[in-house]
Amino acid sequence: MAQATPTTRVDIDAILAEVRAALSEGDWERAVALIEALRPPDQADVFEELPPEEQDQLLPRLDLEDSADILEELEEEDAAEVAARLKVADLARILDEMEPDEAADLLGDIPPERAAKALAKMEEAEEVRPLLAHADDTAGGLMTSAEVLLHKDMTAEEAIAYLRSIAPESETVYYLFVVDEDVRLVGVVSLRELVIAPPDTRIEEIMDPDVIHVRADADQEEAARLMSRYDLLALPVVDEDGRLLGLITHDDLVEVLEEEATEDIYRLGGVPEEQPIDVPVPAALRTRLPWLVLNLGTAMASATVLSIFESTIARVAALAAFFPIVAGVSGSAGTQTLTVVVRGLALGELEPRDGLRALAREVLIGLTNGLVLGGLVALIAAIWKGTPMLGFVVGLATLLNMISAGIAGVLVPLGMQMLRIDPALASPILVTTTTDAMGYFMYLGLATLILPRFL
Amino acid sequence: MAQATPTTRVDIDAILAEVRAALSEGDWERAVALIEALRPPDQADVFEELPPEEQDQLLPRLDLEDSADILEELEEEDAAEVAARLKVADLARILDEMEPDEAADLLGDIPPERAAKALAKMEEAEEVRPLLAHADDTAGGLMTSAEVLLHKDMTAEEAIAYLRSIAPESETVYYLFVVDEDVRLVGVVSLRELVIAPPDTRIEEIMDPDVIHVRADADQEEAARLMSRYDLLALPVVDEDGRLLGLITHDDLVEVLEEEATEDIYRLGGVPEEQPIDVPVPAALRTRLPWLVLNLGTAMASATVLSIFESTIARVAALAAFFPIVAGVSGSAGTQTLTVVVRGLALGELEPRDGLRALAREVLIGLTNGLVLGGLVALIAAIWKGTPMLGFVVGLATLLNMISAGIAGVLVPLGMQMLRIDPALASPILVTTTTDAMGYFMYLGLATLILPRFL
Repeated sequence: MAQATPTTRVDIDAILAEVRAALSEGDWERAVALIEALRPPDQADVFEELPPEEQDQLLPRLDLEDSADILEELEEEDAAEVAARLKVADLARILDEMEPDEAADLLGDIPPERAAKALAKMEEAEEVRPLLAHADDTAGGLMTSAEVLLHKDMTAEEAIAYLRSIAPESETVYYLFVVDEDVRLVGVVSLRELVIAPPDTRIEEIMDPDVIHVRADADQEEAARLMSRYDLLALPVVDEDGRLLGLITHDDLVEVLEEEATEDIYRLGGVPEEQPIDVPVPAALRTRLPWLVLNLGTAMASATVLSIFESTIARVAALAAFFPIVAGVSGSAGTQTLTVVVRGLALGELEPRDGLRALAREVLIGLTNGLVLGGLVALIAAIWKGTPMLGFVVGLATLLNMISAGIAGVLVPLGMQMLRIDPALASPILVTTTTDAMGYFMYLGLATLILPRFL
Repeated sequence: MAQATPTTRVDIDAILAEVRAALSEGDWERAVALIEALRPPDQADVFEELPPEEQDQLLPRLDLEDSADILEELEEEDAAEVAARLKVADLARILDEMEPDEAADLLGDIPPERAAKALAKMEEAEEVRPLLAHADDTAGGLMTSAEVLLHKDMTAEEAIAYLRSIAPESETVYYLFVVDEDVRLVGVVSLRELVIAPPDTRIEEIMDPDVIHVRADADQEEAARLMSRYDLLALPVVDEDGRLLGLITHDDLVEVLEEEATEDIYRLGGVPEEQPIDVPVPAALRTRLPWLVLNLGTAMASATVLSIFESTIARVAALAAFFPIVAGVSGSAGTQTLTVVVRGLALGELEPRDGLRALAREVLIGLTNGLVLGGLVALIAAIWKGTPMLGFVVGLATLLNMISAGIAGVLVPLGMQMLRIDPALASPILVTTTTDAMGYFMYLGLATLILPRFL
C-alpha cells in the first residue's frame, strides 16, 4: 500500500470526471460507489462541484452517514444551500447522523422556520437544542455535547464495561470527563489511564482533579489559546455553576486557528471581514469599498501637506521624483515593524508592558535602515539630478522618516490594543498615513528651508 | 473548582513575583514547589524570566520530568542556551525524559560536538538518533518515534494486556498503528475501537487498512495539510519501502499551522523570514534591510515616471496634491485583492485554474470601486482646486488605476505560484510597484494631454 502511494494524495479531478461520466450515463449506482469510497473531505470536494439537480438526486441515494459527513465538510454557505433544498424529513434524518455541534451550526445557517421544523422531526433534537443557545464565536458555540461522562465513584473496570456497552462513535472519547451528582466537572481521566489502571481502582483515585476548562461565554480565541497552549485534545465547557455543558474538540481548534490567521491576514491587507474566495461581487464591495473610502479620507492628510508646499514643488519639480522613495520605502519599513508587532501581540509573545523595549529596538532599526537607505538615496539623487543639495535633502528626509516609521509601527498597534481595537484592523492604514504625511512634510519642509539658497 | 475559576487562567506575573521573592530569600524549596505546581507551558513562562544563574541553580533541583517539560516548552533559542550551560551528564538525563522528537530538535540546536557527547551518555539515544537524520521542515523532522506498535495477528485482548504491561506515557497512543513482520504499515486501530471490540477479535479484523500517511521527505506543510484536512490526531511517517518510521502528533500540527500563518503574515508584511519578536537588532536588519533596498529599486520605476513628467508637474504643481490618492488608494485596493488571492492559494480554496474567473471578478470590483472613488476624488479635486478639468483627470486616472490594481492583484500572485515562488513573498512589492508606477503614468499622461488646453 505505502509503496504505491508514497504520501497519501487523492486526485479529486480524476474522480470528479469519473463521477460526471457515470452521471451522464445515468449510472447512479456507480456514482454512489465512487463517492462512498472516498474520505469525507474528498467526498465534499467532489460533491460541491456537481450541479444542484445532481446533488439533490445523489444525496438521498448515499448512506445516511456519508450524507451527514458531506454536509459537515462542505463550506457553511454551500451546506446551508443544500439543506434548504432537502425535504424536511430527509434533512432531519441527516442531522441526526451529524455531530451535534455541526448539526447546530447548520441549523443556525438555514431559515429559522425551517430549522424549527427539522428540529421537531429529529430523534436526537435534545442533544442539539442546548447548543443552539450560544453565539457562534464563543466557546459555547464551538462545543459539542459530551456523549460519555464518568461518575467519580465508578471503578476503572465499570467504566470500561460502560464504554463497551454504549460503543461511542464520538470524536470526544479520548479524554473522559468526570462529574459529580450535579453534573459539575470534577476531574478528567484519559482513556489510556483507564485502560492501564488496575480494574478495581476508583475513578476518583486516577482522575486529575485540576481540569483546564472554559466558560461557555468565553471568546472562541480564548478557548483555542488554551487548547493550543496546553496541547489539549478536548476542552470542557462549563456554565457559571461549573456544570459541564459540552466539549470543544481538536478539529475545532484547527478551524479556529485557521480562521483567526485568515482574519489577521485579511485585516492587515485592508479587508475588514473574512469572506470566501468566491463571494458575490456586491458582498465583496460592501466589505472593501468603505475601507477604501476611509483610506481616501486619510490620504487627504498627505494631499493637504503636498498642497501647502505647492509653490516649492512648482519651483523645483525634480523633487517629485523622490516622493515614492521618501514616502513609499519608509511606508514599507513601517509595515515591517507593524507586522512584527501585530503578530507578536496576536501570539501573546509581545505584551503592552514590553512596549518601551520594542520602541527602543525599532527606533534603532529605523535609524540604521535610515542611514543606509538615506545614504543610498542621497547618492542616487545627487548623481541623477546633478544637485548634491537635493541628495542631502532627500537622504535626510528618508532617514528621519525611517525613524518615524519605526515609532508609528510600534505605537499605533500598541495603542489600538490598549483601546481594545484589533491592532490588525486599524494599524496598517494609520501607519502608512503617518509615514506618507510625515515623509512629504519633512521632505518638502527641508526642501523649502534649504534648497532656495542653493538653486 | 469551576466556580472559583470560570475559565482557566494562570497569573504568571503573580507567580513569578512569588518565585523571585523566594529566591531572594534563598528559599529554593519554596521556589521549586511553586514551579512544580504549574503546568509545563506556565513553568516555562516563569523559568524564562529568571536570570541565567538562577535558571542554572534551579533546574537541577526540579524533578527530572519538570526539567524536561521546561526545555520542551521554552522557545528553541532559549532552550538551546540553557542546554549549552548544563553539565553534559545532566543534559543527557533530561534529554532521556523528553519526547524523542523534542530531544532531537534540541540536539540539533546545540553545537554538534556537545550534542554528540550528550547522545553518548543518553540511555534512550537509540530512540532519538534516527530522528536526527531528517531536515527540520520535512515530515521526518516533525515526527517522533512510535512507542507502541501492534502486530496484525494480535487479538484485542492481547493488545490491551500489552498496553497495560508497558504503560505507555506517550502522547501517541490514541491511534495504534499496525505493522507486519517487516514493520511495514498495514493498518490503524483506535484505542476506542480496541477497547470496545470483543476480546478475541484479531487486530487485522478491526483495523482500517487504508491509513493516511506521509513520506519522511515530504514538506511539513504537506503533513499539516493532511492532518488538518482529515482531522488526524497522529500521522504515520513511512520510508520509501512503506516501513513505519515514526508519527507526527497533533501538537506538532498546531505548531506548524501557527508557523505557516506567521510566515505568510510576515512575508505579506515585507519581512521575508520569521524571527522571534526579541531577535537582536543586527539579525532583524539582515532580514529587513535587503527587502527595503529591493523596494528602493522598484520605487525607481515610479521615480522615473515622475521624472519624465517633470515639466508637467512644474506647470501644474497642484497635480501633486493627488499623488497619494491616485497611487496610494489604488495601492490599497491592489493589496486587498492580493490578500484575498494569496490566502485563497494558501488554504487551497483557489487553484491556478480558477484564475480567469478570479480575474473577471476583481476587474469588476476594480471597475465599481473606481467609479465610486474616482467620482468622489473628481468632486473633491474640482471643488478644492476650482478646476473641473483637474477633477476629471484625477477621477479618470483613479478609475483606470483601480482596474489595473485588480488585474495586478490577481495576476502577480498567480504568476508567482506558477513560477513556484511563494506568492506571499514577492507579490506585495510587485503589486504596489505596479499601482504606483501605473498610477503616476496614467495620471500625469492624461494631465499632459488634456490640461494644457484648459489652463
